[in-house]
Amino acid sequence: MTKKEKTMNEITINNKPNSRRNFFKKSAVYSMSAIAASSIVPISKLNADEVEITQKAPWGTKLGDLVDKYAYGIPSPYEHNNVRRVHDLLSSGDRYATVSMTPHHLQEGIITPNGLFFNRSHGGTAHVDPEKFRLMLHGLLEKPLVLTLKQLKRYPSISRIYFIECPANGSTGWRGPQFNNLQFVKGMTSCAEWTGVRLKTVLDDLGLSPNAKWMLAEGSDNSEMARTIPIEKVLDDAMLVWGQNGEPLRPEQGYPVRLLLPGWEGNLNVKWLKRLEFSDKPWHTKEETSKYTMLQANGKGINYFWPMEVNSIITSPCPEVPWTDLEVGDKIEISGLAWSGRGTITTVDISLDGGNNWVEASLKGLILPKAWTRFSYIIKWDGKKKVLLSRSIDDSGHIQPSIDKLIENVGVEGIYHRNPIVGWEVKSNGEVNNVHVRS
Amino acid sequence: MTKKEKTMNEITINNKPNSRRNFFKKSAVYSMSAIAASSIVPISKLNADEVEITQKAPWGTKLGDLVDKYAYGIPSPYEHNNVRRVHDLLSSGDRYATVSMTPHHLQEGIITPNGLFFNRSHGGTAHVDPEKFRLMLHGLLEKPLVLTLKQLKRYPSISRIYFIECPANGSTGWRGPQFNNLQFVKGMTSCAEWTGVRLKTVLDDLGLSPNAKWMLAEGSDNSEMARTIPIEKVLDDAMLVWGQNGEPLRPEQGYPVRLLLPGWEGNLNVKWLKRLEFSDKPWHTKEETSKYTMLQANGKGINYFWPMEVNSIITSPCPEVPWTDLEVGDKIEISGLAWSGRGTITTVDISLDGGNNWVEASLKGLILPKAWTRFSYIIKWDGKKKVLLSRSIDDSGHIQPSIDKLIENVGVEGIYHRNPIVGWEVKSNGEVNNVHVRS
Repeated sequence: MTKKEKTMNEITINNKPNSRRNFFKKSAVYSMSAIAASSIVPISKLNADEVEITQKAPWGTKLGDLVDKYAYGIPSPYEHNNVRRVHDLLSSGDRYATVSMTPHHLQEGIITPNGLFFNRSHGGTAHVDPEKFRLMLHGLLEKPLVLTLKQLKRYPSISRIYFIECPANGSTGWRGPQFNNLQFVKGMTSCAEWTGVRLKTVLDDLGLSPNAKWMLAEGSDNSEMARTIPIEKVLDDAMLVWGQNGEPLRPEQGYPVRLLLPGWEGNLNVKWLKRLEFSDKPWHTKEETSKYTMLQANGKGINYFWPMEVNSIITSPCPEVPWTDLEVGDKIEISGLAWSGRGTITTVDISLDGGNNWVEASLKGLILPKAWTRFSYIIKWDGKKKVLLSRSIDDSGHIQPSIDKLIENVGVEGIYHRNPIVGWEVKSNGEVNNVHVRS
Repeated sequence: MTKKEKTMNEITINNKPNSRRNFFKKSAVYSMSAIAASSIVPISKLNADEVEITQKAPWGTKLGDLVDKYAYGIPSPYEHNNVRRVHDLLSSGDRYATVSMTPHHLQEGIITPNGLFFNRSHGGTAHVDPEKFRLMLHGLLEKPLVLTLKQLKRYPSISRIYFIECPANGSTGWRGPQFNNLQFVKGMTSCAEWTGVRLKTVLDDLGLSPNAKWMLAEGSDNSEMARTIPIEKVLDDAMLVWGQNGEPLRPEQGYPVRLLLPGWEGNLNVKWLKRLEFSDKPWHTKEETSKYTMLQANGKGINYFWPMEVNSIITSPCPEVPWTDLEVGDKIEISGLAWSGRGTITTVDISLDGGNNWVEASLKGLILPKAWTRFSYIIKWDGKKKVLLSRSIDDSGHIQPSIDKLIENVGVEGIYHRNPIVGWEVKSNGEVNNVHVRS
């Protein structure tokens, strides 16, 4: 039709649901019987002590908060348990160089709210004055320079959804269950929409020398975090980011500017960025020699160990979200998160019996490279003990290993890049425990 | 390759950038000359009063905040101006029934952080006890029932990115400029990732009668907001949502459960949801008779007026983000937001001369139906006065009108569904003002 044929006061109900479907592969489909009748309370059976739906609830009988009470809003006080947590075992008393983990059992979708984004630092959270911020780019460049924040933001921006993960994620239990919860087992990863400039855009402007093979990224905080990045990654999808989920970076995430290396070790995504140097040789900094290396089974160490592995975890049920309120016959959704630093999740398999049999889960919502991907599988609860596993595969051909295969491959000394399949044992009463599944 | 061919300690740099591109149409491409040299500070020219990049900044000489200082993180204190704002003219002294607007000039990407999501209510923000929450579904259903929050969340969830917009957005200036800023001109819309259950999934479970043509949605707050929804929309993409950007809904957004009608008037997305009734006739509630109707030029009123119109706004530059620091010859990005309640944005045109000439902008990042879409166009600043306009078109064939065309079409009495093209006059000194462009 021509644009003229429609006037703005026509009411047209959008009848193009398929236009959205293009963005979703394998959308989960549920039948009428997806939910058991037993999960439902007939109107006639409301308990006397429950709010009578036909009457006004207490909060309906008075005015609420002023609309402008909070210029910057806050969560409901009823959600006070939806917070990040630090574990002493991972802090050894040092709360400046530790990690505060995301409560995945309370997360929805693929966006982690900034207030719950996992927080890892080596010297505490620096508070950078954006007016005093400077970023130096030098070394093998035609035009070395120092940028103010305002100058950096002059570059055309892009926004992308990516996860960030600490390479130690999973180290709290990969030899076998150590913590009986989800938050401490895989809580060192979160996912956000990042806004900034492609590093390639900046380097095209400054004239990168063909001899430049490595980039040093240095932070301005007291820990002097510095890492060496191969130029191929820099020119592929590396970004200098100043925005996270629609607002400026949080101080915990490197305000005002951090390096973003999609899919690669969290510590490489240098926060409170100060300096980028380009060279024909690597630097072998403290954080890539004494630290963030990995001893292998053969006794040799891996120096650089960049992309995070293909990974997944069942987030419902889990020890914090048991099935204790289910009744036999209820249909229930097993759901969780999968991600890979090497590309896009193609498949997530689920086992209900500790790995003897596997079925393919549905992938839900947006399926983006180097971003969290949601998976789903619906079962009918039979009240019998189960051992739930999830196993993810990415488009680079990698597959998530069992704990035993991982140990066989890389030994037991290192603590980094542990992406084993985690076992959730569901007891007949619905309680869920973290168990070591032999394979 | 087979999965076995790769061991987990191989380093494979992802060389599939194109795998991501599938999700982006018309990605903006920038040349080396995208940024003018004049926007850059040579190292040798650092002012004495500026931080010497070769020295430690003040925040680099001491420990930062403890990693676990904030269990739920907060923004940098330097960003204290990045907040929602209420205007007296729209409140008439009543801060319970008013709207607090999103600062679009400080927004990045397409996700609005929950703390900055625009907030409109009719009786203030209700604080619902999730344990006492009940949702009644009744009327033309085989299985009428009352659900607890836990029972509702048993249904398989989906997550989708959608904007919400108050139908009064744009009413502050659609007859001509009223406010000389962006926040009060188009600030009654925000965009988030919502998680909940498709209403169709619930109705398939409860057995909707074929005679059901309308649904009444009623809130539990003191304003008793109630609206009538046609069943076609209910069965298309309506959701009952409990999650927003990865966490539970904020109280301001209807915690614990609101109705989500993608692309339709904000007030239809009933907050603090209490009751859904199904009938063969509409209800003609207070909010769709005395209110949220629209008087047309012909003197007749529109009763139901559901989908939000195709819209767009240039967010940089704008009165709050002027070009006063540009030098002649600088390249600069004109960027903004486009959205439509009827579908997906297909085109955004930009004019630099008040509408005499138009050029097509690039669409950036994810392009999703009924979600914010970013557009971009780069120019070289010549220091001459300009009048910037943006005009969006969606895949339903609608096109954003000029103020004069809109008035010609619907008159000047109503205040709803005003989506005119906004004019930003850029003076030779870079100042930006909201101007009425005649057409």
